[in-house]
Amino acid sequence: MTQTPSAAPRAAPPPATDDLGCEMHRLVADLYPICRSITGNGVRESLDLIGRHVPLTVHEVPSGTPVFDWTVPNEWNIRDAYVRNRQGQRVIDFRKSNLHVMSYSLPVRRTVSLEELKAHLHTLPAQPDWIPYRTAYYKEDWGFCVSHRQLAELTEPEYEVCIDATLAPGHLTYGECYLPGASPAEVLVSTHVCHPSLGNDNLSGVALATFLAKQLQAAPRRLSYRFLFIPGTIGAITWLCQREAEVARIQHGLVLSCVGDAGHVHYKRSRRGNATIDRAMDHVLRHSGDAYVVEDFSPFGYDERQYCSPGFDLPVGRLSRTPHGRFPEYHTSADNLDFVRPAALADSLAKCLAVFSILEHDTAYLSRNPKCEPQLGRRGLYRTTGGHQDERVTEIALLWVLNFSDGRHTLLDIAERAGLPFEELRRAAEVLAAHDLIAPAP
Amino acid sequence: MTQTPSAAPRAAPPPATDDLGCEMHRLVADLYPICRSITGNGVRESLDLIGRHVPLTVHEVPSGTPVFDWTVPNEWNIRDAYVRNRQGQRVIDFRKSNLHVMSYSLPVRRTVSLEELKAHLHTLPAQPDWIPYRTAYYKEDWGFCVSHRQLAELTEPEYEVCIDATLAPGHLTYGECYLPGASPAEVLVSTHVCHPSLGNDNLSGVALATFLAKQLQAAPRRLSYRFLFIPGTIGAITWLCQREAEVARIQHGLVLSCVGDAGHVHYKRSRRGNATIDRAMDHVLRHSGDAYVVEDFSPFGYDERQYCSPGFDLPVGRLSRTPHGRFPEYHTSADNLDFVRPAALADSLAKCLAVFSILEHDTAYLSRNPKCEPQLGRRGLYRTTGGHQDERVTEIALLWVLNFSDGRHTLLDIAERAGLPFEELRRAAEVLAAHDLIAPAP
Amino acid sequence: MTQTPSAAPRAAPPPATDDLGCEMHRLVADLYPICRSITGNGVRESLDLIGRHVPLTVHEVPSGTPVFDWTVPNEWNIRDAYVRNRQGQRVIDFRKSNLHVMSYSLPVRRTVSLEELKAHLHTLPAQPDWIPYRTAYYKEDWGFCVSHRQLAELTEPEYEVCIDATLAPGHLTYGECYLPGASPAEVLVSTHVCHPSLGNDNLSGVALATFLAKQLQAAPRRLSYRFLFIPGTIGAITWLCQREAEVARIQHGLVLSCVGDAGHVHYKRSRRGNATIDRAMDHVLRHSGDAYVVEDFSPFGYDERQYCSPGFDLPVGRLSRTPHGRFPEYHTSADNLDFVRPAALADSLAKCLAVFSILEHDTAYLSRNPKCEPQLGRRGLYRTTGGHQDERVTEIALLWVLNFSDGRHTLLDIAERAGLPFEELRRAAEVLAAHDLIAPAP
Repeated sequence: MTQTPSAAPRAAPPPATDDLGCEMHRLVADLYPICRSITGNGVRESLDLIGRHVPLTVHEVPSGTPVFDWTVPNEWNIRDAYVRNRQGQRVIDFRKSNLHVMSYSLPVRRTVSLEELKAHLHTLPAQPDWIPYRTAYYKEDWGFCVSHRQLAELTEPEYEVCIDATLAPGHLTYGECYLPGASPAEVLVSTHVCHPSLGNDNLSGVALATFLAKQLQAAPRRLSYRFLFIPGTIGAITWLCQREAEVARIQHGLVLSCVGDAGHVHYKRSRRGNATIDRAMDHVLRHSGDAYVVEDFSPFGYDERQYCSPGFDLPVGRLSRTPHGRFPEYHTSADNLDFVRPAALADSLAKCLAVFSILEHDTAYLSRNPKCEPQLGRRGLYRTTGGHQDERVTEIALLWVLNFSDGRHTLLDIAERAGLPFEELRRAAEVLAAHDLIAPAP
Repeated sequence: MTQTPSAAPRAAPPPATDDLGCEMHRLVADLYPICRSITGNGVRESLDLIGRHVPLTVHEVPSGTPVFDWTVPNEWNIRDAYVRNRQGQRVIDFRKSNLHVMSYSLPVRRTVSLEELKAHLHTLPAQPDWIPYRTAYYKEDWGFCVSHRQLAELTEPEYEVCIDATLAPGHLTYGECYLPGASPAEVLVSTHVCHPSLGNDNLSGVALATFLAKQLQAAPRRLSYRFLFIPGTIGAITWLCQREAEVARIQHGLVLSCVGDAGHVHYKRSRRGNATIDRAMDHVLRHSGDAYVVEDFSPFGYDERQYCSPGFDLPVGRLSRTPHGRFPEYHTSADNLDFVRPAALADSLAKCLAVFSILEHDTAYLSRNPKCEPQLGRRGLYRTTGGHQDERVTEIALLWVLNFSDGRHTLLDIAERAGLPFEELRRAAEVLAAHDLIAPAP
Repeated sequence: MTQTPSAAPRAAPPPATDDLGCEMHRLVADLYPICRSITGNGVRESLDLIGRHVPLTVHEVPSGTPVFDWTVPNEWNIRDAYVRNRQGQRVIDFRKSNLHVMSYSLPVRRTVSLEELKAHLHTLPAQPDWIPYRTAYYKEDWGFCVSHRQLAELTEPEYEVCIDATLAPGHLTYGECYLPGASPAEVLVSTHVCHPSLGNDNLSGVALATFLAKQLQAAPRRLSYRFLFIPGTIGAITWLCQREAEVARIQHGLVLSCVGDAGHVHYKRSRRGNATIDRAMDHVLRHSGDAYVVEDFSPFGYDERQYCSPGFDLPVGRLSRTPHGRFPEYHTSADNLDFVRPAALADSLAKCLAVFSILEHDTAYLSRNPKCEPQLGRRGLYRTTGGHQDERVTEIALLWVLNFSDGRHTLLDIAERAGLPFEELRRAAEVLAAHDLIAPAP
């Protein structure tokens, strides 16, 4: 914990976020065509693409492995699927959109009556042009998803259906990018990689996690960072079960979900409610000048459900822009590449990096002159307000840090009490430490 | 504390409250003509009527018995009273309304001048048709209460006054209905029985207490319930003094006062302010959909003053509709049978039973799968939302109970955090316990 | 701590504050012409005048004495200063206003060009008729302060400047008035005496402190009171350093600054935020019927900065009317005798005395009848509401004090919970103690 200001590790320098927004969107576009599910080659192919950006370890867990109350399911892979009319035309074609097939559909190849077919078709009557996204992970079934308009065009008495898929013992696959820091204390970033051609849910999360790792990799780190690219629910459960011994290292965590749409940020607090990650996120959002919403924990949502289950109760919150289920495009073909905005991705990235910078530097200090103020004037620190806004060290920040460097207040505590941005206090603390007026509390 | 859901004791099943409202009003009407005071045969007669509905033990405490800083007073009984004019006509007649005589008036029988008579007459000039209710428990005096209009008609120079009463050593009488439960832990319900022909204050409280006891009697109970029918102030002091050894069993308590008028519910918190009874009442009122007011404790009011005196500081709140002193009819002849509404009595009953149901079932549970969520799907609990609204078990409630079954959160804690009705969480807990997913915390 | 109500020490009886307002303003006027600085004869002369009102000990601390991170500076004294034109006329004349010379100016006597002179002149362009107040305590410099209009009149090419001052080893001077009470526990009142002819900042504070001491001196005291008349910053630092062993006695403290203007009261909380002084001041202001503002602690302002530095963290708040820097007249010649109002001084005095009365009497009591209420009626305390408003003992106050005389609630705690004025509860406590119904908690 002894750190001199000159050597103080920093999160990545402020990135040119506009460019990064476009780069992240490019990664979303690269991943978009792949047909992912909670297992199978789509996940492997996706991890392969992610691994071109950051160092990634890919883990394979055999089907049938018990993980707490669950079991790793059989692996599902699909080559092709269609519904053909009498003329042999594909009236529903997996090659046009992988959403057309219900995920985890059993293989099928036969001729069915229109009536039987309809029992296996899913549509969105309220959005007649959109294809819904449906899954059948834990029930034996098959199905197609089509636009309501497409359904209306099916008038022939019989159709040939084909789902050329396999559901058989194999593996559950997940990726992990670990960036060690000076301390083994960890920040967990978790994102699900099990959705097929859907943009905001959750290729936005995948791209954001990838580029966060990329940025952090380039800078010294006090904390260690672990990025998980996992299938939703079963992936988090598998990871927590198999790596339970490592869980104690997690000091802060974020689930990323739906982080690329044009809406403003919604942060969902951890179950603890006032973990440092919760307070850091609240601080960054409060000082961002942007609209935002902070919501209390609830036991439904994405993988925060598992990280915040009572046996773990980890300090893991969830970052979203418009949360899942609150935008009409959610789990439909309209959650496409246009729905994800480079500027939104860039803004999510910048806010996460600002939060990580707080986690890195949220230290308590001890004043070396706790009795009365030290004489700032003879050190050239009196009424010093020069410098660019982002670099400025204000006297007011110096005084706040000095007064509360009592070993019991971290910089985030002081920032909350002073109503000043964390970074302004961090710069003040560096200057004060450089003048030997404060030192990190033991 | 090991309870299986099927055997879980429940408060009374939802009563047909409309009918009960009428039955309670009938009891109010039966009790209304009796001339009660803090001692005497009126109380005995009233307890006799109550005892036809619920098992009642009647206690007699001799006059002169010291009770803390007080002394049980002499017993007062009255046979007749009037003021007669020269023609021998009763111009004020106790037989028309027992409010005409100031309670605890000394016996008197003589002819007095109009001037002397007026010094003993009490009226309400602002409400010229109403007879006020006055008492002289702890001063030696006699008096009549009349409408202001009646007073104006007294023009003769002399009148014959007669109060045929006795004030002599005897007893203070109170009734007690004790319903033992599986646990000796007690719920105290206290109501005063010392007012003569007044409806809302407090025959409404007497009827409500009687019917609460009647309902609870019919169902299994985890908790024991003690209903006190006592004269105000001196009765509570006497009970607390003579039964001090039993006080420690009281875990929750309610004083019932003015619970039958058309106003909305006012709940006054216990001195502790966040006792379970306070939180349960707040919860029931918040989810009732009705207007209500919750007020902080203050050391004036009804017998909560004694239960919440610093030497006892019991978790006893007070339930009223319009509190005493805040409706013009209070302590006048206008607080009559019309002022008490069957529907209001029924609503007060339903709310008390809902609160008692919380007290009965406010248990903390432990999840048997605390690490990650258990797989609800294979137990048929995933997206189960069927059933009638009052019987429905929602997935959201299942998840809240599962996540907070950490032994530190009771169902009421969870209900407050989730913003869901207690009963919804209780049903979820029963289902989860039946599937062996949670168990009561030791 | 055993005190009988009859012998209970009281703060001064309600003063005829109007008269006192005028007397305080007279003291402000007496002190106004003196040229004070952080050291020198102006401070001595001022303390001499204060010492005619209250017993004052004057301390002299030699220049060069180390005090924590600081050093007592050389002593500055000034006899005369002027700027003369070619005709020998004083165009800037210290004898007209001591604000004309920058405090701690080095001695100078020579002829300078207009250009060089201007580099040493300070004006307020936005307020062209006002002379600013400037200091150069910790830098070697000289300067004159003039109205912007005066500056415009300087058109000659050369001027003769003279500052007949000495800056040489000497002493820092401060005054101390100590009023011992029954207990060594102390109330600290600190005010700065280093400003020259400025009225609100801070002759108002000096006059208020003087008259507070005068009032308290006349009455019995449970607490001891220490009034410090010290130069700002360096004076507080010097006192804290030299008297560190005595600091532990300070249980409550107030810095007085700008307490005589027509604005409403602003109270700045101590660093602790809920010290008794903070709560007492809040209580007095809340019940005053006047507009007021209570602000959280911040580490800038007046000498509360030193008393609340982390190594001391004393329960010291600051009382102001319009705080320094928030009125345009601040640190200018417009902060003159007219800017200070007798009525404002009187109001500040009354509020401080009300706060001190709380500090004196904020005792926790124990009821001698904790179980149920005692019978107030037979003691003549039932429905007693007589007396003048300021002397009245209300039944409601009696009941609040009785109910919360559990040894854990002080009278201020009860006042906050009851929403009643402290004095009403104090009178109730005296009556109850006189009837032996409560006694001070051990």
